[in-house]
Amino acid sequence: MNLVLFAADEMSGDVVRLTGRRAEHIRAVHRAAAGDDLTVGVENGRIGRGTVITLDPLELRVVLDREPPPPLPVTLVLALPRPKVLNRVIAGATSMGVKRIVIINAWRVEKSYWKSPRLSPENLHAQSVAGLEQAEDTVLPAIELRRLFRPFVENELPSIAAGSRAIVAHPKASSDVPRALTGPVTLAIGPEGGFIEKEIESFMRIGFETVSLGPRILRVETAMAALLARVGN
Amino acid sequence: MNLVLFAADEMSGDVVRLTGRRAEHIRAVHRAAAGDDLTVGVENGRIGRGTVITLDPLELRVVLDREPPPPLPVTLVLALPRPKVLNRVIAGATSMGVKRIVIINAWRVEKSYWKSPRLSPENLHAQSVAGLEQAEDTVLPAIELRRLFRPFVENELPSIAAGSRAIVAHPKASSDVPRALTGPVTLAIGPEGGFIEKEIESFMRIGFETVSLGPRILRVETAMAALLARVGN
Repeated sequence: MNLVLFAADEMSGDVVRLTGRRAEHIRAVHRAAAGDDLTVGVENGRIGRGTVITLDPLELRVVLDREPPPPLPVTLVLALPRPKVLNRVIAGATSMGVKRIVIINAWRVEKSYWKSPRLSPENLHAQSVAGLEQAEDTVLPAIELRRLFRPFVENELPSIAAGSRAIVAHPKASSDVPRALTGPVTLAIGPEGGFIEKEIESFMRIGFETVSLGPRILRVETAMAALLARVGN
Repeated sequence: MNLVLFAADEMSGDVVRLTGRRAEHIRAVHRAAAGDDLTVGVENGRIGRGTVITLDPLELRVVLDREPPPPLPVTLVLALPRPKVLNRVIAGATSMGVKRIVIINAWRVEKSYWKSPRLSPENLHAQSVAGLEQAEDTVLPAIELRRLFRPFVENELPSIAAGSRAIVAHPKASSDVPRALTGPVTLAIGPEGGFIEKEIESFMRIGFETVSLGPRILRVETAMAALLARVGN
C-alpha cells in the first residue's frame, strides 16, 4: 500500500479516521508510529500527506496538496479472463492508469467464468482500490460487464471507440503495436487462445486495426502490461 | 501449454514418448486423440508439429521444421522478488524472450527470501519451461543468483553490460525508458520499494542510466513486462 486511499466522507475537517483493513495495514505492515507521515489520497480527488495522530483508533491529519498522476487515455476492452487471473488484471490495469474497463464475452471464454464471485461489484472495487494504492493514484476506473459479444461490439463499441485509435491484439496480425500514442486509444484484448476469426472480423468491421506484439503467445496479464506500455506515451 | 517441450534425448528417431506432467496435460487439458497435431519443440532447438500416435503410453511422431522465435536481446538484472512473485516473474520474463536473468540482492530484499525453496535450480527450470511452453519457444534462459550486491555490481556487471545499453529502472529518474532499441540491453529492476540511492549510485558509477516509466509505482511483474515491452523492438 504505497498510498492510503479514503473516501471524502471519511474526513472530518482535516482528520481522517480509518478502520478495518487499512488501519490494520498501517499498524502491522507500515509499523507506523504517532508523528509518522504516510502518502494519502481521497477517492477521485487529490493526493498528499497524512500524519499519524493516534494509532488506535487510527487517525491521520491530512494535507492534500497535489493532483493524482495523469490517467492513461486507454479504454480497455477485455475478454473475461479466468477468475484466478481477473484480480491481477484489474489491479494491474488500474495501476497503469486505465480509467475505463469493459469486460466482454468471447467464444473462448468459458461460460462458468461468468458465475465467479470475483465479478461482484465489491470485488471489482476492491481490486481497483488495490491498483490505486499500488500506483499512488486516486481515480477509480469505471468497470462494465457485457455478457453478449455481438450486441456490444455492433451497437455500443462504435461510440466507445469513436475519436480514438482502435486496436485489437491478434497474434496473427502483420502490424506492430503502435507506440507512444498521444491521443485516446481503445484496446481490445482476447481470452487465452485469442479471439476467433469471426470476432476479429467483427472488430475490423467497426474500424479496429489488428496489431501483434510478435510471435510469442503471452499470458493475458503479461500481454496487457506490454500492450499498455507500448501504446502509452 | 501452447508448445510441448521435450529434451533431445527423449526422442528415438522421430518418435517422442512423454510421461508425467506433459502426458497428463495432453490427455486431460488438450483432450488429444490419436491423429491430433500439437505444436512441439526440442529444448534449445527447433519447433514443429507432433502427431499423437498413442495416448497411453503417450507417443508423438514429430516433424521439426522451423526455428524458435528470436530472443529478446535483454539481460535482466533483477532484485530477488518475494517468493510468491518469483515464479510469475521468471515465467513472464522467459515468455517475453529474455535469455539471461541475474537475480541479485538489494537493501530492500528481505533476507528470508533467499531461503525460499523456489530458488532451487529445479524450480527455476520449471518456471522457465512454463514460460517457453506459453510463448512457443524452446531456448531456456540462463538464471544466475548473486547474493552480494556490491561485488556483483562492481566486479561482474561491467563486463555483463559491456556493449549494451545499460539502464536501471528508478522511479525518480527524469529520463523516459528508451523505446524500440535494436541492440542489446542490460536492464536492472529493483525490489518493491526500489533500489536505495546508494545502490542507484553504484549502477551509475559503472555507466548505467536511470530511467522511469512515470510517476506510477508498479508491481514488479507489471513493471517488468512494461519495461521489456518499451525497450523491445
